[in-house]
Order: sequence, then structure tokens, then C-alpha cells
Amino acid sequence: MTEQAKDTKASNAMWGGRFASGPDAIMEAINASISFDKRLYAQDIRGSRAHAAMLAAQGIISNKDAEAIREGLLTVLSEIEGGNFPFSTALEDIHMNVEARLKEVIGEPAGRLHTARSRNDQVATDFRLWVRDQADAAIASLDALIRACLAQAEAGADWVMPGFTHLQTAQPVTWGHHMMAYVEMFARDKSRFEDARKRMNESPLGAAALAGTGFPTDRFMTAEALGFDRPMANSLDAVSDRDFALEFLSSASICAVHLSRLAEELVIWSSAQFRFVAMSDKWSTGSSIMPQKRNPDAAELIRAKIGRILGATVALFTVMKGLPLAYSKDMQEDKEQVFDAADNLLLALAAMAGMISDLTVNRDKLEAAAASGFSTATDLADWLVREAGLPFRDAHHVTGTLVAMAEAKGCDLPDLTLEEMQSVNGAINSSIFDVLGVHNSVASRQSYGGTAPDQVRAQIARWKERLA
Amino acid sequence: MTEQAKDTKASNAMWGGRFASGPDAIMEAINASISFDKRLYAQDIRGSRAHAAMLAAQGIISNKDAEAIREGLLTVLSEIEGGNFPFSTALEDIHMNVEARLKEVIGEPAGRLHTARSRNDQVATDFRLWVRDQADAAIASLDALIRACLAQAEAGADWVMPGFTHLQTAQPVTWGHHMMAYVEMFARDKSRFEDARKRMNESPLGAAALAGTGFPTDRFMTAEALGFDRPMANSLDAVSDRDFALEFLSSASICAVHLSRLAEELVIWSSAQFRFVAMSDKWSTGSSIMPQKRNPDAAELIRAKIGRILGATVALFTVMKGLPLAYSKDMQEDKEQVFDAADNLLLALAAMAGMISDLTVNRDKLEAAAASGFSTATDLADWLVREAGLPFRDAHHVTGTLVAMAEAKGCDLPDLTLEEMQSVNGAINSSIFDVLGVHNSVASRQSYGGTAPDQVRAQIARWKERLA
Amino acid sequence: MTEQAKDTKASNAMWGGRFASGPDAIMEAINASISFDKRLYAQDIRGSRAHAAMLAAQGIISNKDAEAIREGLLTVLSEIEGGNFPFSTALEDIHMNVEARLKEVIGEPAGRLHTARSRNDQVATDFRLWVRDQADAAIASLDALIRACLAQAEAGADWVMPGFTHLQTAQPVTWGHHMMAYVEMFARDKSRFEDARKRMNESPLGAAALAGTGFPTDRFMTAEALGFDRPMANSLDAVSDRDFALEFLSSASICAVHLSRLAEELVIWSSAQFRFVAMSDKWSTGSSIMPQKRNPDAAELIRAKIGRILGATVALFTVMKGLPLAYSKDMQEDKEQVFDAADNLLLALAAMAGMISDLTVNRDKLEAAAASGFSTATDLADWLVREAGLPFRDAHHVTGTLVAMAEAKGCDLPDLTLEEMQSVNGAINSSIFDVLGVHNSVASRQSYGGTAPDQVRAQIARWKERLA
Amino acid sequence: MTEQAKDTKASNAMWGGRFASGPDAIMEAINASISFDKRLYAQDIRGSRAHAAMLAAQGIISNKDAEAIREGLLTVLSEIEGGNFPFSTALEDIHMNVEARLKEVIGEPAGRLHTARSRNDQVATDFRLWVRDQADAAIASLDALIRACLAQAEAGADWVMPGFTHLQTAQPVTWGHHMMAYVEMFARDKSRFEDARKRMNESPLGAAALAGTGFPTDRFMTAEALGFDRPMANSLDAVSDRDFALEFLSSASICAVHLSRLAEELVIWSSAQFRFVAMSDKWSTGSSIMPQKRNPDAAELIRAKIGRILGATVALFTVMKGLPLAYSKDMQEDKEQVFDAADNLLLALAAMAGMISDLTVNRDKLEAAAASGFSTATDLADWLVREAGLPFRDAHHVTGTLVAMAEAKGCDLPDLTLEEMQSVNGAINSSIFDVLGVHNSVASRQSYGGTAPDQVRAQIARWKERLA
Repeated sequence: MTEQAKDTKASNAMWGGRFASGPDAIMEAINASISFDKRLYAQDIRGSRAHAAMLAAQGIISNKDAEAIREGLLTVLSEIEGGNFPFSTALEDIHMNVEARLKEVIGEPAGRLHTARSRNDQVATDFRLWVRDQADAAIASLDALIRACLAQAEAGADWVMPGFTHLQTAQPVTWGHHMMAYVEMFARDKSRFEDARKRMNESPLGAAALAGTGFPTDRFMTAEALGFDRPMANSLDAVSDRDFALEFLSSASICAVHLSRLAEELVIWSSAQFRFVAMSDKWSTGSSIMPQKRNPDAAELIRAKIGRILGATVALFTVMKGLPLAYSKDMQEDKEQVFDAADNLLLALAAMAGMISDLTVNRDKLEAAAASGFSTATDLADWLVREAGLPFRDAHHVTGTLVAMAEAKGCDLPDLTLEEMQSVNGAINSSIFDVLGVHNSVASRQSYGGTAPDQVRAQIARWKERLA
Repeated sequence: MTEQAKDTKASNAMWGGRFASGPDAIMEAINASISFDKRLYAQDIRGSRAHAAMLAAQGIISNKDAEAIREGLLTVLSEIEGGNFPFSTALEDIHMNVEARLKEVIGEPAGRLHTARSRNDQVATDFRLWVRDQADAAIASLDALIRACLAQAEAGADWVMPGFTHLQTAQPVTWGHHMMAYVEMFARDKSRFEDARKRMNESPLGAAALAGTGFPTDRFMTAEALGFDRPMANSLDAVSDRDFALEFLSSASICAVHLSRLAEELVIWSSAQFRFVAMSDKWSTGSSIMPQKRNPDAAELIRAKIGRILGATVALFTVMKGLPLAYSKDMQEDKEQVFDAADNLLLALAAMAGMISDLTVNRDKLEAAAASGFSTATDLADWLVREAGLPFRDAHHVTGTLVAMAEAKGCDLPDLTLEEMQSVNGAINSSIFDVLGVHNSVASRQSYGGTAPDQVRAQIARWKERLA
Repeated sequence: MTEQAKDTKASNAMWGGRFASGPDAIMEAINASISFDKRLYAQDIRGSRAHAAMLAAQGIISNKDAEAIREGLLTVLSEIEGGNFPFSTALEDIHMNVEARLKEVIGEPAGRLHTARSRNDQVATDFRLWVRDQADAAIASLDALIRACLAQAEAGADWVMPGFTHLQTAQPVTWGHHMMAYVEMFARDKSRFEDARKRMNESPLGAAALAGTGFPTDRFMTAEALGFDRPMANSLDAVSDRDFALEFLSSASICAVHLSRLAEELVIWSSAQFRFVAMSDKWSTGSSIMPQKRNPDAAELIRAKIGRILGATVALFTVMKGLPLAYSKDMQEDKEQVFDAADNLLLALAAMAGMISDLTVNRDKLEAAAASGFSTATDLADWLVREAGLPFRDAHHVTGTLVAMAEAKGCDLPDLTLEEMQSVNGAINSSIFDVLGVHNSVASRQSYGGTAPDQVRAQIARWKERLA
Repeated sequence: MTEQAKDTKASNAMWGGRFASGPDAIMEAINASISFDKRLYAQDIRGSRAHAAMLAAQGIISNKDAEAIREGLLTVLSEIEGGNFPFSTALEDIHMNVEARLKEVIGEPAGRLHTARSRNDQVATDFRLWVRDQADAAIASLDALIRACLAQAEAGADWVMPGFTHLQTAQPVTWGHHMMAYVEMFARDKSRFEDARKRMNESPLGAAALAGTGFPTDRFMTAEALGFDRPMANSLDAVSDRDFALEFLSSASICAVHLSRLAEELVIWSSAQFRFVAMSDKWSTGSSIMPQKRNPDAAELIRAKIGRILGATVALFTVMKGLPLAYSKDMQEDKEQVFDAADNLLLALAAMAGMISDLTVNRDKLEAAAASGFSTATDLADWLVREAGLPFRDAHHVTGTLVAMAEAKGCDLPDLTLEEMQSVNGAINSSIFDVLGVHNSVASRQSYGGTAPDQVRAQIARWKERLA
């Protein structure tokens, strides 16, 4: 056994058997970020190109050097996009990988690119640009999902279905009304990403390591070139904070909760006992021996996504807790969480939009379910208040008696005779039959935002105008 | 042993020994919310008064009844505020407690108050009003904290201190610069609460149980009376969602992360090894036998608050995951989390504002620490780039050699002679001494947002104008 | 306006309006723990009595003083339990409240109680004792719940119901089998609390502030008196760590996940569409006007409890992150989280045991649902493998064809004739009818742990023996 | 523009721009698990080999087929380990990838392997085996880390350092004592993994889809072959629960909290202000221009790991919340969380063991810091109680006066003269000097588990024996 081998064996025992090669391998494994931050290559190159242009415009480097840098970076970009770029773990991160390759491509001027900046403002810039792109993608995806829900709402603005509370039938509502509830939720999610985007859209570039720089830079110029509204006002803050990522993650978590609720409904509605909807084959998997079985896989996976997105959120909050200013290496843990959350949110949004578009709704099942369970008892009580002048609490009591009577007879409320009703309360007259029955019930709920088809159509119209 | 006693003993065993009194006690304990939702009394009464006025204006109840209800509710309000209100667990929640007492006070008209609404829209309204109040309080508290940081920044706009990365001295910065970094963070926190407030400021009232109502209500009227911008557009959404609470909690968590970072710095800076700052007695506790010991209790507790606020956030996200529309009883778990998070956030903000205001800064210690560790090496490198035209990466190499030389001599960089420096690189001339030394260093960082006292003062001025 | 009033107004603005009374009120609000740690009174007094006895036994204080202390503490205990104890916020915490009252009761010897200990080991001892009690309570409550599930399993060991995957009917199982799955889960939960209890059952008492003490104490004696297995071996560790609380919370969270799954099933099974079970009135709430409506409130609230318990867990993990040794004030945030999680877990366990005991199972609905959807198609495929020697994947193909045939005929699998079956695969013979039909199906699943009533009864018998 | 192109463009808009290729690509992206579950290949093949052997032993398949399967699986294994295996996303997961390749390799008998099992019990088995391996690795890694701490403790059993509370010097302790506190913590972490391993070590294999099987399987045989203690007792439970993963994650989170605390100490101790320790170059990064700067990167990254591990824990808890039995597709989200948490925990443990082993301790700095700040005031107070018979609270008062006197004189406690001391309390005699001074102080703390070098060495000896 060679000395080397003995050493390896010793350290093998030392590190608990996982890292046979000892400290160097462990340090590289824990320290290098290139395995994940290479996803920032386009942002990194875009930021460097803007920086080089500014350095030249301000006379900090020559125009010739700037031009060489800017061209060379395009070469590197196309190498990466062409899949021919040899990423190196020894070079640790995307910034060093790009710069080292730039040096090979253009030689000496590459060394001037890093003037008046540092990796701290560079990574903050790259990451902000990336998160901003994800916010834009989330906004676009939510827009698509809202349109899918809107189309369903329009098709079924007057389809009656049970409105549930506690998963018990409470009052009849319409399919369109239910779909429009999600339009409202997803629209708030969208506006949350819009607010987050606005707040994060300031440029850290030029903050340098933490203190700013003595070079006569123009941070407004780079900010504008990168589509930022302005440079960040404090260089320490620029390299230290990741609240833009926390806000993105929080917004994603709220959106994922909304998705999980709709997904849960789709799973329940697809069960043999409900059969309110049927998933398209595109979004479910069958069983080779039970042909009628269709597992709502996509809905279940969407339901689950709140797990990992919330987990990513908790992860970054916990990482950032109690870190002194300015940059600490802990913050290298920010990216993978946001990458994973963004990927999964966008995937879930796309899948949900697809599922909602392809959904087959069993209108008959919905209506039959809506009618069961004395679901218009509230309408009866409201009639007693409105037409017979009973206080609300008394009207409830009369209604309870009538429901009990119907239950004893084995019939539904509209099947009671006027005489039977009058035996409980003399003020009841034949106009009561106008409010019983699920279609009458929904038609009557004309309050703003209510389930009456007219109201639902008005709500749809408002949204179509807004989205136009 | 009586039968009763035996029963009790039996159920005692049954429930694992904790709930001797059996099912009724357990159900009451798990179901009733009055122990915590009584905090919503003012919002509940305010909402009911607006509702009664609207019912009368729309001719749904008589003006006389409405007047009796509105007056009666004021009586109930003053009873609660006077501490004389007998809250009853049997009446389950704040809504029933108030209504039942109203009935005792004004009799029959009380029964008409609940017309055209339900507990579902009532609790959603109460809770929104409450959370809106907390958002306002957070905004005001952040404003106070920003002003405290601004005052510190103004006092020490040119006090030099070490700028840390990895808790290692990196470059000198100024105290004012450091304080202004927190101004930026807290200002973003404030704007986050402002956005959340705007988004939540729509009225659920009138959504009724979930479907809206057949009564000719005017939801715009109640919305306006309660300071909402408009009624919510979809009644199902109005009673089903709690995203406004999730957004409040997320914003609170981000703010609490910022607080934890400043708190950590205060704890470290108060240690015997740093002694950068001294806490006032108001915010620390002493030891009866170690008079010089001053524990930074308030800072530690503020640092810890991100724990419970993030915990509350995770709690409500998890509760809401996968709930079908509309109301489910699970949602009763929303309030305690927000109560606790809001209470603790506001407390932490107030304590931090107080601590920052009372902070004694040890200016000499800061400056001495800033000067140690060749903290102006970067300035030297930058000079070589700027004045001698070296590429950045080469300038770094020269600087490293000079630092090694100083280290070998046991002196700091400005103590090297010009000859010594020129022996390393001939382009160095006497103007190099203008950038060495911490005061020169910070003064030179004139980039926008940089640490130069001029820049810091400009930043302060912008903020004072904005806050005026 | 008086000076005082001006001051108040000034500080009012200063603290953002919430804490008019200024620093003192804020510091007291954030610093004092008596509002919640008074729950530790019994543990605190128990610990102090053990400590006093040890001090006397070791000759550190006199027997007379020890006797006075021990008697006086009993007086304080009975005052607290009698509700006559004036808790004082100025005295900050339960330890100082008890000691100050002891001094009033017995005078000078009270000052000797705190010899050779500190608040750091005192609170660690109190809290461990409290958490240990909760672990015991959780174990007892789980035992009760296991028995309730076992009783349901025994009653319905052979009741056929649909076994779901993806909430789609997959194969028939028995009610007993389903209930026994929860017995297994809750039993693992119980063993988790047992392990946690064992690991935490070491005494921190005598660790003093952090370094141990120079007094000749006997930490084994106090450990034994308090039911601990031994003293903790390292005094720094004893006052610094809260992993016992983290482990309790983690175990509670896992248990709460199990509860949430059973609760979700109860909610779904109670829907009008499923009607597999009916909740007793004790655990649900009705509607005054929809008498058939029974909201599964208790099940929904139990389902929600994982939210706050997981939230509490995250809270304490986050608080403890990155705290240097030994005690930091952040750790004061440990107790409320564990209090809330323990209270809610025990409540949820008791409610679930009650609900399961009172559950009415609709055996006919279960069986009808089990038979629908060709749920025995797998049995058919297995028969083809077993009796006709087909490879499993081929058998699936034949089965698919037969199911399609039945579907086309509008009948179920057992309704196909032998000839029809043989037309698809000639190896089929009449013994195939032995495996079709849900009763045949479940009876056949005789593998260890399978759903055959025999297997389920054997599983029940093993558990009854184990619990006896 | 072709029709195809138009379609693509349309769906492009539809899915928000991210998934140009429409539903198929989205469904594949959300549904397939092969990209991550291929990590289970060794476990999958091991499980299948055990299953095949059992099927033959029970006469369910022929010995010849079993042999072909078992050999074929070894071929597949070597293909995967050789990096030559073409993983296919169309085949969705590792199970289908392996089985499909097996069919190519051995033909028809491959179809018999899946007899009497299903993907549900297969994946549960694979995942349990994988998690069990991680538990073993965590136990081994903790063992290595414990040994590293023990070695540090042994080297510095009597090196005096400040014992901190609130990061303020409280009392002197020894380096060995501090290191041994972590030995205790990591040993509890280890025992937690041992308990988790025991609890999870039951075989799900043979549970089939959920109901067990009608084939005459021997689940004890496969359990034994795979190193499980026994088969799981309930087939529904076997395929439905993931509590073993939750327990692994919870245990990992607790361990990561301990690591974060030690890492925080290393970061603080490495600061220029503390300089208690110096990291080896292996675990830190330098700066090319500030040669004395050494960033404690590895420590910071270890400190951060609790973030992602806690995040993974929250993720899986949230996924599992409220899932009805048995398998739901949501559960596919279990693996990535555990993979990431396990990888990062093991990495952090290895890095910490390496750092602790390589740590250079600045003994002089430690001792100087220990002596500052009247850190032996408590010893003085204790002497007054022990030797002069003062009640503890009175002794504190006298000590406070003496400290104030020393502070006024600008000296430390041992520098006061006996006369000066006696002027405050006449009972003081010259033996008091035996307890002042940090070495006297630590030597005196002889209580069990205390910081006296003797006690620390005894503690070390106990651990060495236990680990031997």
C-alpha cells in the first residue's frame, strides 16, 4: 500500500466515509457554485457588456478595449448557448468562468473588465436580472391561466352547481361564478408579482465590493442599459440584501396556495363519487387494466408544489436570518432555492392553464348535486324576511320546520304544497315558489359579485375589458 | 362511586387523561374562537353599524330599527371597552357574543341585523379591517424606525468604521453609510406594507354565505363606510381567500429578517471584543455582581422575532394548502397567527427604534478597527489602474506584493516609503498617499450610493425630503 | 400642555404611535416572560424543592433553612393553584415571582435557595420537566386514539370499502384494514415520543450559569428526585441547548400530519357525494335551517392543526439557528411555541379519539362504492398469472380487453359469461369467478399485512396483545 | 407560416411563453421523475433481486426465470454504474427504466418480475433503503465529527477562555469544556438517527398496490434479504406513509441547527476583533490583495445549511398534509427534498469535521479575553456564601461593591488589597485570593459536568471509552 493510499484510507475514515479524497474535495463541493449559478450566464454577460460600455463612455477604459470585451463576451455567450463551453469547477462560479474564457478569447483587455466593480455587485446584478425575468414569466403565465379560467366561466356562466362550505352543500352557485373566484385570486397573484418587480427593479451594479468606487462611474447609464429604473441608492444595501428574492418567493408561495386549492377541487371533483369533471388524457394517467380509471396526476402534482415552494421560501428566510452586513458567503445559498421555486411555479401554472382549458365539465352531475340537500332553504328564509317581514332569526326557525316537514315526507322543498307551508306560517303565499329551485335561487342572487348569471356575466365582461 | 363519577373516570381514560369532562369540553375547546377573536370587537361593531345603515338606506329594514341597532351597538362597544362585557364561550365567537348582547339591549330589532349577510362575510370583513389596521401601524412604526436610523446616519455621516464581508474587515465605510443601508431596507419594507394594504382594501361585506344575496343591498355603500376602496368583485372569493393575511405575514417576515440582521450587528458590536456601541440601560439588563456587564436583551429578542413571525407565516400557508372553496372551518386558524405576528413585529419595531435612538457609538473604536488589516489595499490597487494604467488583475498583484512588504516591516501601507513602493512598480508616485489612509479611502468613493461622506449626506438629504 | 404630556406626545411619535408610554413599557413588553412562563410554576417549585433538599444533604445550607424553604414553596404552590397569587411583571419571570414570594413567606432563608444554581439551569430544568410531561400526555393520548381505531377495526374487519389511490377506486379493501393503517402510524408516533422522552430525560440542574459550581453539590441526587435518569454531562450544553424541544415539536408535527390525513378522509367521507360516514352531533355543527347539514368542524380543525404545530416547529428552529453558546436571550422564545404546539396536539388527539369512537359507518355505501369501477380487475389479472401462467404484463393486456368488453355490455366483470371470457383467452375457466366480486377479492389478499379479513384480524390480535 | 407553426405559436401564448411545445412537454416535465429518482437505481435493483428470489422460493415463478432476472439485473446495474445506461424520460421513472432494459437483456422472463408487487410498494422499498443508507452515513459522519471535537477537547482541556452568555463574558470556562458541549449535542444527533433508522427498518415490499396480494408470497424472506427487521404489518400503511422521511429530515434539521451554532462561533472567533481561532487555508478563501484576510467560507456555508434542510423538511410536511390514503401522486415530491437535505447534511458534517481538525486555536487570546471584565466576580460571591456564610443575594451585593471599587481603581479583582476588601465586608480573609483569577476559577468548578479541567478530562475519558 502506498503512502498516498494509506492517507486516503485514513482520511476516508476521518470524513465518515463519504469524501474519500479529503479536504480538497469537500471544500470544492461545499464552496463552488458553478454547478448551479451557470444558469445566470446570460445575465452575467449582459451585465458585463453594459459595464464595459459605461467604462468606455466614462473614459475609464479605452473604446477599443471596451469593444474587444463586448465582442468577446458575445463569443462566450454563443459558446455557452451552443453547449460547447467547458465549465470549470476550479473557477468556482459563473463570473470567473466567463472572465477566464474571455481572457482566452481576447487576451489582455479582459483584465480591464473588472475595473470599478466586484463579484459582490456583479452577482447581485445577475441574480436580480434573473429574478426579474421570472417575475415577468410568472405574470405572463398567470395571464394565460386567468384567460383559461375566464373561458370556462364564460361557457358555464349559468351552469348550476353546489356551493360548498365545509365540503357540505350550502347554496347553489354557478360554474362561472366559481371559475371567476379563481380569476380574482390569480389576478391578485399577478399584481403581487408586478409590485415585486417594480420594487426589485433597481441596479446594484457599481456598488463594487460594498463601499462604492473611486472611479468616475455612471451607475445611471448601466442601470438604464439593463432596464433598471435607477441605480440602488446605497452600495452597502446593494450587495447585502436579498429581500427581492424573499418577496419573489413569498409571492410564489401565495400563488401556489391558490393553485393547490383549485388542484384539490379537481382531484375531488374527478372522484367516482363526485364525477363533476373529467380530466383530459393529456393531464392524467390511465391504468392498463382499469380503463375507466384516470388518475389526476397533474392536479396532484400541482397541489404538491406549494410544498417545495414554501420550503424554498423558508430556506432563504432562515439563511438570511441574523447575517451582519455586507456580503456573507451564506448568501450563496440564495440561488438554488429561487431557481427551484420559479421552475416549479411556472410549470404548475402552465399545467393548470392546460388542464383548465381541456376540462370536461359534467353539467348534469353539477346540477343534480346542487339540487340535493335542501340547498335553497336559505332562499326560503330570505323570502320570509323580505316578503313576510319576519326578523331573520325567526325566519330561520320557520324554515327549519318546513325542511323537517319535507324530510319527513321524503320530498324536496318545492314539492311541499302551499297549504302545508301555510300551516307553518300563514304569511306564505304562492310567490314563494319563485325562489325555490336551484335556478330560481341563483337567478335571485343579484347583489354585486353574487352568483346570479347576470352578475357573473358582468364580472366576466369587466375582466375581458381589463385584459384586452 | 356515583354513576357520574364512573362515567367521568371512563371518559378520562378514553381521552388520554387530559379532558376529564369528555366530548363536550373537547369540542368546546377545539371549536370556540371567542378566546381570541374577541380582539375583533371594534371591527365587528363597526362593520355591523355600516351594514345596518345600508339596510335602512336600501329599505331592507326600517330606519327606526337601524337606529336602534346602531345605538345599541355603541352601547355594546362601550361595555366591551369598559371591561364589563361577559364574553361567553357557549356563544362561540365575537359575532354571536355581540349579537346576543345587542338583543338583550334593544330587543327584537336585533334579529334584523343579520339580514343579507352571514358569518362568513362578517368575519372576513372584521379580519380585513383588523389586518389593515396592523398594516397602518407597521407603516407608522417603520417610519419611526427610518427616522431613528436617519438621525444616527446624520450624526455620523463621516465617522469611519470597518466595512465587513464575511465578518472580516474589507474596506472602510462610514457609520452614516451603514445606517442608510438600513434606511433603504426599512423603506422597502414600508412600501411592501403599503402595497399589501392597497391590495387588501376591498370589502367582502355583502358576499353573504358565499353566493351573494337576493336582498337589494348596496355593497358600495358599506365598502365606503368602512374605508374600503370598493367591494370585492366575487362573493365566493370574498369568503374563501385569506391571501391578504398571507401577504401581511410575508411582508412582516421580510421586515423581521432585516431587523434580525441589525440586531445581530448590535449584539456583536456590544461584545467586549468589538465595543463599537454601547446599549442604553433602557434596552439592556445588567448583572448585580458584574456592573460592567450589559446584556443586549432587547437586541437578542428582536433577533429572535423572525422565528415566530416566520413560524406564523408557515402555519397559515400550511392551513390554507389544498382547501376547497368556499369557507372551511380550518380557516378559523388564521387569526391567532396574524395576531401574534403583528404584535411581535410592532413590538420589535418600536424596540429597535428606541435602541437606535439611544445608541452610544464608540467613534474611536470604529475608526481604529477600520484602519487595521490593510483595509485600503483596494484603494491602492484602484490607484494603479486609474493613474498608472495597469489592468485590474495586474494591479491586484502589485498590491499584494506591497502588502506583504508592509506586513514584513510590521507597518501599515501608508507607512511604506515612496522608494519602497517604487521598487515594486516604477509608475507609483507620491500622489498615491492621497488614497491611503481610511479617511482618504472613504472620501474617494464618490460613486453614486458610495460611502464618501458627500454621497452619504446627499442620500440623507434625499430621504429627509421624501419623509418631509 | 405639561412637560410630561409633551414628552409622551414626542415619544408617541417616536414609537410609531403604539407605545405611548415610551421605552420602559416597550422594554417590559418585550423582555418580561411571566405572562407565559407562569405555566411552569409547578415544575419550578418542584425543582427548587429538590435543590433545597440537596443543598442541605450536602451541608451547603442548614437542614432548618432547607425545611423552611421546602415548606414555604408548598405554600406558594397552593397560593398559585388557588388562584390567589399576584403575578408581577416587574419581577419578570416565574422564577423571580416564586422566589420573591418565598422571601415574603419565610424571610431570610429564602435568600439561600439560589445557592449553587442560576436562572439558566433553573429554566432549563423547569422547561424539560414540562416538555417531559407533555411527551407523557401525548403518549397517553395516542394510546387512547389507537384503542379507538382498533375498536373500529374490530367492528369492521370484514366490511368492504374502496381502496383509493389518487382518490380513484383502485382495489377493494376492508374498513378494518384501513383503520389498522392508522393504528400503525399512531403507534410509530407514540414510539417517537417515547424515544424523545428518553433522550431528554437528563437533568440540567446544577449546571449553574454555564460553568458548573464550586459548591460540593450532588447533581445525581437532584436528578433522581426529579425523575431524571441522570444529570447532563456537560454544564455548557445543559444551559445552551433546546434540542429536546425541537425533537418534541418535530414528533408533534409528524403526528399532526397523520391526524390531518385521517381528518381529510373524514371530511371527504362526510360529503353528500360520499356519505361513507356520519359524524356524531358531538363533533359537528348543524345549521338551523338545513337540518340535514352537518359540518365536520372538529375534523376540519384537526386537519388544520398541522399548520400551527409545523409553524411552531419552524419558529424554534429559526430562533436557535446560529446562536453562539451558552445562553442567549433569544432562547426565551422557546416556550410559547412548545406550549401552543403541545396544547393543540393534545386537543386534536382527544378530539380525534372521540370522533373515531362516535363514528357511524355506512357499511352499505362503502360496499357499493367498492364494487363500482371494475375494482377487481387486478384480481382477474393475478388469476391469469397464477392459474394460467401468463407473464404479468400479458395478463394485464387480457384483463384490459375483458374490462372493455364488460364496459361495452354495461355490466361488471363477474357478469360476463365464461364463454365471453374464453373468447379473449382460452385458458380461463370457471374458477375465475372465485376471485371476482369484492368479497372474493379481499378474502384472497392473504399476504402478510394484506386486506383479507383473516389478516386484518390477526393484525388486530397482535395489537391487542401488545397494548394489554 | 405552416399550420404547425401557427399551432405552436398559439399554444406558446396559451402557456405563457415558457412551454412552446404545449401540453405534452408540460405533462412530461411535471410528471416524469426519472431525472431525480435514478439515484435509487442500486436500491431498485437490490429490491427486485430479492423479490425474484422470493417468487422462485415460493414457487410463484420458476427458478430458471428467477435466475435470468437476477443475472439480468446485475447486467443492468453494471451498465448504470458504468455510465452507459440510456435513461429515458418517456419511461417516466427508474422502475420502468430498469424493467424495460431488463426485458431487452433477458426477454420474456422480465415480464414475470412484477408479479405480486406494484410500483407503490416498490418505490416505498427503494426509498426506505436509500434513506436508511443516509441515516447510516449521517451516523458515521457524526462519529467522525465527535472524534474531531474530542481531539480538540483533549488538547485544550485546561485552556481558559471566556464563557459567554448574551455574547458577553460571563465566567471563564475551558476550551475542552466548550468542545465537549458539542460532543454531547452531536452524540444526541447521532442517537436520533439511530432511533429513526430502527423505526424505518421495516419492509414495505409485498404490500403491492395497497391491499396486499393473493400470491403466496413470503414477505419475511424479502425483508430479511434487504436487511429489514421485519415486513411492515399493514399493506395500506406501507404504501401510504412517508413518516420515515419526515423523521430523517427532522433529525437532520436538529443536527443542522447544532452545526449552525458552532459555525457561527467559528465565524465570530475568526474576526479581527476576536482572533480566538484561525481557519486553515483548506477551509477558507483568501484575497489576492489582502493577504491577512481569510474568509471563513466553509463555516459560513455550514451555518447556512440549516436553511435548505429546514426548507426541505417544511416542504415534505406540507406535501403530506391532508393526503387521503393510500398513494397520491403528490408523494412523488418526497425524494428531491430528502436527496438535497441528505447531501447537504453529509457535506456540512464532513466540512465541519475537517475544519475542527485543522483549527488553530490562539490560546493566549482566549486566556486574555477570559480574564477581562471581572469574569470571576461570581467566584467571589460564591466564596462569600461558602466561607463567610452570607445568603446568596447578600453576597451578590458585596461583590457588586468590590467590583465597583476595582473599576474605580482601574484594576481587576485580584489586584485589590485584602484591606480594601475587608473595608466592604469584614469576613473576607486571604483565602479569597484562591478563587480569584481565571485558573483558580475554572479549577474550582468541580461539580459534575463542570468546567474544571479534572471534570472535563473525566468527561473526555467517558466518551473515549464509549466510542472505543
